[in-house]
Amino acid sequence: MNEIPYKIYLTEDEMPKAWYNLRSAMKNKPAPLLNPGTHEPMKAEELAPVFCEELIKQELDNDTEYFPIPDEIYNFYKMFRPSPLVRAYFLEKALGTPAKIYYKFEGNNTSGSHKLNSAIAQAYYAKKQGLKGVTTETGAGQWGTALSMACSYFGLDCKVYMVKVSYEQKPFRREVMRTYGADVTPSPSMTTNIGKKILEAHPGTTGSLGCAISEAVEVATSTPGYRYVLGSVLNQVLLHQSIIGLETQAALDKYGEKPDIVIGCAGGGSNLGGLIAPFMRDKINGDLDCRIIAVEPASCPSLTRGVYAYDFCDTGMVCPLAKMYTLGSNFIPSANHAGGLRYHGMSSTLSQLYDDGLMEARSVVQTDVFKAAEQFARVEGILPAPESSHAIKVAIDEALKCKETGEAKTIVFGLTGTGYFDLVAYQKFHDGDMSDYIPTDEDLQKSFDTLPKT
Amino acid sequence: MNEIPYKIYLTEDEMPKAWYNLRSAMKNKPAPLLNPGTHEPMKAEELAPVFCEELIKQELDNDTEYFPIPDEIYNFYKMFRPSPLVRAYFLEKALGTPAKIYYKFEGNNTSGSHKLNSAIAQAYYAKKQGLKGVTTETGAGQWGTALSMACSYFGLDCKVYMVKVSYEQKPFRREVMRTYGADVTPSPSMTTNIGKKILEAHPGTTGSLGCAISEAVEVATSTPGYRYVLGSVLNQVLLHQSIIGLETQAALDKYGEKPDIVIGCAGGGSNLGGLIAPFMRDKINGDLDCRIIAVEPASCPSLTRGVYAYDFCDTGMVCPLAKMYTLGSNFIPSANHAGGLRYHGMSSTLSQLYDDGLMEARSVVQTDVFKAAEQFARVEGILPAPESSHAIKVAIDEALKCKETGEAKTIVFGLTGTGYFDLVAYQKFHDGDMSDYIPTDEDLQKSFDTLPKT
Repeated sequence: MNEIPYKIYLTEDEMPKAWYNLRSAMKNKPAPLLNPGTHEPMKAEELAPVFCEELIKQELDNDTEYFPIPDEIYNFYKMFRPSPLVRAYFLEKALGTPAKIYYKFEGNNTSGSHKLNSAIAQAYYAKKQGLKGVTTETGAGQWGTALSMACSYFGLDCKVYMVKVSYEQKPFRREVMRTYGADVTPSPSMTTNIGKKILEAHPGTTGSLGCAISEAVEVATSTPGYRYVLGSVLNQVLLHQSIIGLETQAALDKYGEKPDIVIGCAGGGSNLGGLIAPFMRDKINGDLDCRIIAVEPASCPSLTRGVYAYDFCDTGMVCPLAKMYTLGSNFIPSANHAGGLRYHGMSSTLSQLYDDGLMEARSVVQTDVFKAAEQFARVEGILPAPESSHAIKVAIDEALKCKETGEAKTIVFGLTGTGYFDLVAYQKFHDGDMSDYIPTDEDLQKSFDTLPKT
Repeated sequence: MNEIPYKIYLTEDEMPKAWYNLRSAMKNKPAPLLNPGTHEPMKAEELAPVFCEELIKQELDNDTEYFPIPDEIYNFYKMFRPSPLVRAYFLEKALGTPAKIYYKFEGNNTSGSHKLNSAIAQAYYAKKQGLKGVTTETGAGQWGTALSMACSYFGLDCKVYMVKVSYEQKPFRREVMRTYGADVTPSPSMTTNIGKKILEAHPGTTGSLGCAISEAVEVATSTPGYRYVLGSVLNQVLLHQSIIGLETQAALDKYGEKPDIVIGCAGGGSNLGGLIAPFMRDKINGDLDCRIIAVEPASCPSLTRGVYAYDFCDTGMVCPLAKMYTLGSNFIPSANHAGGLRYHGMSSTLSQLYDDGLMEARSVVQTDVFKAAEQFARVEGILPAPESSHAIKVAIDEALKCKETGEAKTIVFGLTGTGYFDLVAYQKFHDGDMSDYIPTDEDLQKSFDTLPKT
C-alpha cells in the first residue's frame, strides 16, 4: 500500500471558499487594457456595454487578494469539484523515473475541461445583473460547452459563435451544446455586420477565433439584455481558474509535498494562470523555490517567438487593446489540432510574469505531443485532450531528465481535459497524416508588421 | 452545508478486497450452460478451448461467496476506482421530490463505462495463463474499448470484432481502441469461416452482436495461445462487476442509508448484476426490504416479453446453450441507439432471480429515455450514455411517484457510463428523427419458433 493514494480528493468542506487573485502578489502589475480609439486605459464604464458589472470589477482589480466564491457558484462546483490530484504512479513506473509526478485532472465533467470553473462564475454574475443572456465564441468547443452548461443551470440564453471549421468538423460538440439548450452559429455568419463583411471579402473562409470574438461582441453590444463573456485571456478568467491551483496546493499540503516544477499548457492562459496562482505567489514571496513552465504549440508560439506589445484581441478590432506576448492578430496558425491553443496572444498577467523572468516557456511540435498523449493514455487510463498533452510532453521530458540525474523531483502538471472530441486528430496521428509545420521568421515578421502603434 | 456530500468517495483502503458471488446466496441456482450437441451440462474441460482456466472456475462456481481480487487487478482498479456514489441533489430539486436519489457513476474512465471492471480481470487471468492474446466482440464499443485498455496494460494482443454498423458509425470508438493498440475488424468479415458464410448469404449485412461473437470465438479456438472473452451475460462477468454494488453499499453504510429501490439498465446484465449483488443477497436473506428493477428498451424486451428457455448465445451457434429470458437468437431489434442493450438474451443469474420474483422488470421507449437523459444532463452535469439513461428514466418515474405520495424513499440507480460517443443518437432526438418502434407479438413469435428444443 502506497502512503500517498493514487487519487487525492479533498472533501467538499476542504474546497477553497475564495478565488485567489494572483495580480495582488505581482510587483509589476499586468498592463491595463487600452481603448482602441484613444489608447487610454479602459474605464469600467467603457467596458460596461460589453461585460457584466461584477466581472469588470474583478477584471480591473489588481489589489484584492481573495474574492469569496458566491454560494450559488460554490454549490454548482460540487457537481464536479473538488477535482482529483492524481499521483501518476503508473507513468512513473513506465518511465522508470525517480521523479514524483502529479497531475490535476479537470476533465471529469461534461464540458470535458477546466472551462466550467469560469463559465459558471460568469453566468452567475450575468444572472445576478438581471441579464437575459450572454454571447461568446468557441474554437475547439470546450468553452462553448462549458458556458452552455452554466447558462442552462441559471436559465440564461446562450448564443455561441463557433469557428466554422470546428462547427463542421466537430458536430458532436455542437450537439452537446444543443443538449444544454444553446444556440450555436457557425462563424463567420450573416447574423452580424462584421460577419457579413468578412464573408464578402473572403467567401470561402472557414473562420477564426478572432473573427468569432468580433461577432459575439457585436451581438452582445447590440442586443438589449445581453453581454459578452470570454473563456480565457482575461484577468477575471484567471481569477476563477485559481481554484485549480488552490485545490492542487491544498492536496499536496496534505502529504507535505512541494512542487519543484509546475507545468501547464498555454493558449490564452486560463488553465496555466489558474494552476500556478498560489505557487507563483509563493515563488514571488520567496516561500517556494520552483520552476514554472508554460507549454505552447510550435505552430502558435506566442511566448517563445512572439513580441511583447499592445495588440488587438480580435480580428474585427472591436475589443480593447491588450498588452501581451503576441504573434499579431492577423496571425493564422497552420493546421493544429490543439484548437484551444491557437490564439495569437497570451493573457496579460502571464505575459508580464514571463517578461519578468518568473516563468519559462517551451514550444513543442504536434507529433511529439500525440506520442506523449498515447503513452500517457496507455498507462494512466485517461485519453487526454491535445491541449493538455502539451503539458504531458514536457512533464515526461522533465521526468526523464530526473532519470538521468537521479533526482527525485516533484513535478506537477495540469491535465486540463479529455480528448473524446479530438479523435480525428488521434486518427491522423495513427495514420501518419499529422503535420509539424512551424511558422518561418518571415511568416511571423509579416504578422508583426500589422501590430497597432501605441 | 448538507450532511451527506454530493459525491461520496470511499478511500482506496475502503475499496472492496474481494468480489462477491451472488449465486452463493441464491436458493435456486442459475441453470448450467449446456453442450449444444449433447445438451449435457458443460464441463470445465469442454470450456477450456474457449475460456481461460481461472475464469471457467469462477463461471462454474455457484457456492464460493467471495473471490479475493488479485493484487495486480486491485492496483489497476485504483486508476479509476473507487468510483463516486453521487447524491443527486440537483435532480431531486428539479423534480421537487422528497425522494433521496443516489447514483453510482462508473463513467469516469476512458472506456466510458463499467466494462473496465471485468475487462482488467479477464485480461489478468489470460496473462497469468501465459496466453498471447484474447478475442472479443463489441457492439456499441464500450466493452471493446475497455478490453483494449486492459490488454494494453498487460501487454496482451487484443482482437476485437466490431459489429459493422457500429464500426462505420462510430469511427471514434475504433480510434480509441487503436490508441490502446487493439486490432479492430468490422464484423462480419472475411477473416473467419462463419463470417464468410454470413457474407455469402447476406452480402449487404451490417452485422449483429451474435455474429461478431461467433467470429471472435472461431478465431480464439483456432489460434494457438488465444482465448475468447465476453463483456456481459456470463456469471464470471457479474462476479467482477459486484465491485459496483459492494462499493455502493459501503458508501451508503457510511451515512446509515439503505435503499428502498435499486434500479439498473439491463442488456446482458453485467451492470445490473454487479450493482444489485449485495442488496439482492440481503433481500434473499431477509435483511433488506427493497425493490430491484431491471430496465430494458421496449425495442429489445427480453425480460418483459421474452420466454425463459435454453437458447443459443450467438448467431453461429458455436457457443454453449444458456437458459435465459430470451427473444430468440434470431431476433433483430429495430434501430435502437442503446447499443449495449440490444442483446437477445439476459444473464442466466438475473433470469433466475426474475423468474423467482425477486426482481421486477420494466421496458421503456427510446424517446422517453432521451428526454430523461437530457433532463439529467442539464441538472447533474453529466452527459449519460443511452444505456444508462434507461435507469435514469425509471429513477425519475419512481421519484415522481414519491412526490405524489409524499414518501421520502431512497432510490439508488446505476449510471453505467457517459454518452460522448452517442451524439448521433442525441442529434436524432433533438431533430425529432428518433423512432419508438416496438416489436409486435408476431415479430416475437417468429423468433421464438427458432428456439432450440432441449
